Amino acid sequence: MEKKIKIVPGFSWFGKNIGIKDKTLDFGGVLSDVPCNAAAVFTRNTMPGAPIIVGKEHVENGKLQAIIVNSKNANVATELKGVEDSRQICQLVAESCGISVDLVLPSSTGVIGRYLPMAVIEAGCQNLQHEFGNTVKDAERFARSIMTTDTRPKWISAKVGDATIFGVAKGAGMVEPNMATMLSYFMTDADISSEKLQEILGRVVNQSYNRISIDTDTSTSDTVAILANGLAGEVDLDEFEKILLEISIYLAKEIARDGEGATKLIDLTVCGAQSQQQALLTAKSIVNSPLVKTAIYGADPNWGRFVMAIGKVFDYTVEIKDLKIFFGENREYYIDADVIDRDVVPLDEISSMLKNEYVFIEVVLGNGSYSERVWGCDLTEGYVKENAYYTT
Amino acid sequence: MEKKIKIVPGFSWFGKNIGIKDKTLDFGGVLSDVPCNAAAVFTRNTMPGAPIIVGKEHVENGKLQAIIVNSKNANVATELKGVEDSRQICQLVAESCGISVDLVLPSSTGVIGRYLPMAVIEAGCQNLQHEFGNTVKDAERFARSIMTTDTRPKWISAKVGDATIFGVAKGAGMVEPNMATMLSYFMTDADISSEKLQEILGRVVNQSYNRISIDTDTSTSDTVAILANGLAGEVDLDEFEKILLEISIYLAKEIARDGEGATKLIDLTVCGAQSQQQALLTAKSIVNSPLVKTAIYGADPNWGRFVMAIGKVFDYTVEIKDLKIFFGENREYYIDADVIDRDVVPLDEISSMLKNEYVFIEVVLGNGSYSERVWGCDLTEGYVKENAYYTT
Repeated sequence: MEKKIKIVPGFSWFGKNIGIKDKTLDFGGVLSDVPCNAAAVFTRNTMPGAPIIVGKEHVENGKLQAIIVNSKNANVATELKGVEDSRQICQLVAESCGISVDLVLPSSTGVIGRYLPMAVIEAGCQNLQHEFGNTVKDAERFARSIMTTDTRPKWISAKVGDATIFGVAKGAGMVEPNMATMLSYFMTDADISSEKLQEILGRVVNQSYNRISIDTDTSTSDTVAILANGLAGEVDLDEFEKILLEISIYLAKEIARDGEGATKLIDLTVCGAQSQQQALLTAKSIVNSPLVKTAIYGADPNWGRFVMAIGKVFDYTVEIKDLKIFFGENREYYIDADVIDRDVVPLDEISSMLKNEYVFIEVVLGNGSYSERVWGCDLTEGYVKENAYYTT
Repeated sequence: MEKKIKIVPGFSWFGKNIGIKDKTLDFGGVLSDVPCNAAAVFTRNTMPGAPIIVGKEHVENGKLQAIIVNSKNANVATELKGVEDSRQICQLVAESCGISVDLVLPSSTGVIGRYLPMAVIEAGCQNLQHEFGNTVKDAERFARSIMTTDTRPKWISAKVGDATIFGVAKGAGMVEPNMATMLSYFMTDADISSEKLQEILGRVVNQSYNRISIDTDTSTSDTVAILANGLAGEVDLDEFEKILLEISIYLAKEIARDGEGATKLIDLTVCGAQSQQQALLTAKSIVNSPLVKTAIYGADPNWGRFVMAIGKVFDYTVEIKDLKIFFGENREYYIDADVIDRDVVPLDEISSMLKNEYVFIEVVLGNGSYSERVWGCDLTEGYVKENAYYTT
């Protein structure tokens, strides 16, 4: 991963305002010079948006050449009309860019239950081929155009051999992943088959986007896609997967850190579990507990709330005497529930540590050999305000 | 159910301050003139508090004569010392009142992970027999002494034939029941065997306390107990169960309405489900969704969030065309996702309705014959404040 963003040869981007709701960027796209091998993972929500239905069809043969995204309206719960609208957008993009319609992956994000303003979008699709540019600036405008309540764009690039991977994501709310939960796209010039891409993407998503949670809610629009144009030739696949995982975790953490109203990123490891499932369920139970999240917001070293959250994973028993809770990136301070003299617990030190923007916590359940790492954020008045007064 | 509280002959109460944390009422008890048939249901949290461990032993033979409760400290995650402390309290109560120690049900509620201040509690148990009184005022002091972040006492009484049932509860936070999640006690002078009491209590709790949720967190201290002294003779058991359910639902709703920071009670029915489980999972998914809860707080008719919450019950599929969402106690307004003309949706009327303190919502999933009713509350800045800055 490098600080300086490198774009991928053979791809171009745009992001612009077409007036779907207000004056902010609300329409963006990615176009490859050539058809790409492609793979995608979609939301598990059983009420998926229309673009999910269309997108699944289009990626089925493992080929994509363009991505088109609108924010401010999710095109969800819009039934057949919504699906027709999504197909129509793909058709307009395909015509403008001179490519086949089934090479276009559509996404929409925003409010649920409203029809897309198709007249506005149709006007926005006029001469779209001239909107695309291949500079970092163009890619940034795309990253900004897909934002909803995100406070900043999320993007990253990395080299794998001679190839480059560029990744972009948006998150903010309705983020408890069960399959990727938000929009995220990767472009690379590595030459990889679509079958391999799908395998790699599935594993990577499971270890990155499926390990974050903002509010336990699962969006109806979540999509992660990867497009490989092959221009840089073949790469070492293990290396590619390792780097893709690294940048996916980076983007996933960026999403968690920028959760609606969030002031802190929670980086939580649960280890010593008897099974992978116990580790994951316990980690999710802790990182999703409103009482843990508010305690971390308030820098309150209320470790009893961790005990409660561990204990509400009903299928597994943890002995309180085996439980230890470490705080700090280097496990600087810890709570040992087995220590009778509770006065030695370094509550003040832990409270100071909880005031940081990055909060590292490691929970040791016992002597088991399984562990999981997840990321989340604190629960603040900001989350409530943003979602109570968010006008539909 | 009657507005005027009637206490039950043969029981006496006390509630007082002994200085566990501050000057508010923090210690209370109930004493029966004679040993009672009794039954109880406890938390499913796998890290139960010490009083739960002791309480289960004491109620095992179906007999109880006294309940002793302290607030401000939950005596949880305190291991063997916590259990010894809880036994010691029962012993002191038993000696003061001249009853057998295994007739005492102990409860503690408050912060997790601290030892009880036993010197303070031992002093508070001196001559306890003189503290009990049999007036409504005494019962009210008991109801107040078990409160933590509750803003008001919760109590109710009802007649069943010649007998009376008196019920009292506390809730406020850490309330997602899986088994009763909070403290609640019933006293009656009906003559019912402990086996029957246990059967009835199990069914009643499942339909009342297990149908409320404040924040998805499950307390380590939850206890519901019923004591029947038999003084009023036998009653019709079906009638008894019906009335007990009625007052349990009343208390459960009072707990939901008085959830930490809550401004509204959400009364949600999900019907038209294909199975009982689908109805319950969907109802819980909606009533626990932070995005639904904040929308209701803000009176935002953002029905798309209901669609999202229904869709994250991954095991069942709902057709959006079958979905209807009614608002109001008499289903005054509704959203029909199948109506293409979204302009006819009465959003302003629904928003007005969501401004009420009681919010009635009915979600029709389809043509199935199963339904469930649950109760919850909105999510507000008050919840965050109360739990972020709550000093341990």
